[in-house]
Amino acid sequence: MIVQIFMELELEKKVITQHECNASLNAVGDALYAIGGKWKLRIIAALSSGNKRFNDLQREIGGISARVLSNELKDMELNGFVKRNIDTGYPVVIAYELTEYSQTLESVLKALDEWGRMHREKVRSGL
Amino acid sequence: MIVQIFMELELEKKVITQHECNASLNAVGDALYAIGGKWKLRIIAALSSGNKRFNDLQREIGGISARVLSNELKDMELNGFVKRNIDTGYPVVIAYELTEYSQTLESVLKALDEWGRMHREKVRSGL
Repeated sequence: MIVQIFMELELEKKVITQHECNASLNAVGDALYAIGGKWKLRIIAALSSGNKRFNDLQREIGGISARVLSNELKDMELNGFVKRNIDTGYPVVIAYELTEYSQTLESVLKALDEWGRMHREKVRSGL
Repeated sequence: MIVQIFMELELEKKVITQHECNASLNAVGDALYAIGGKWKLRIIAALSSGNKRFNDLQREIGGISARVLSNELKDMELNGFVKRNIDTGYPVVIAYELTEYSQTLESVLKALDEWGRMHREKVRSGL
């Protein structure tokens, strides 16, 4: 809805249905759910410099409990951003890696990055 | 970092500094903080169809407590998305409206909307 509302204001006086409006709201909500929160982006960042084992990941991120990190990783596995590799040698080594799918977030992250910088300037200069 | 990492992978083998990396991460974090969470987008949606008084807003959104709505509105006022209009007639009428600044979110919401739809399809078809 919001997107269409803005488009409506700026581009043309387009009328949208309640159904389209809810679909947009839900899609935006899904996206925020998948990458929102305090840790997911930090985890992606830590993994983007290479595959990591659980303990190394926890140390690099800093301030995250094992329980929370484990839950976040499970969530991100379900969403297809992270893969859990099990190397069944001796000792068994489990490492986490980013999937190719996680790269589809690029345009979202770019938009968030640009807006975040602009917003910070705005807040700094007193809105 | 993430943005640059993806750009690095896809566009050119650009080397980034730790400083640039943190700046991007922080900007994305700021943006998610400003629009993330369960309610902010619903509030923007409700206000995009016209200015609303507190009680009307609470009724339209549904399922949000007065306390949470009040906190979210204060947050959004600080971030410059929402304006609190006080009409000092009798009785005093307080209504909330979206600012022009809230329209700067357009490209972010568009990217989230597109990605969210794509991601839903992906999850539906079993990743």
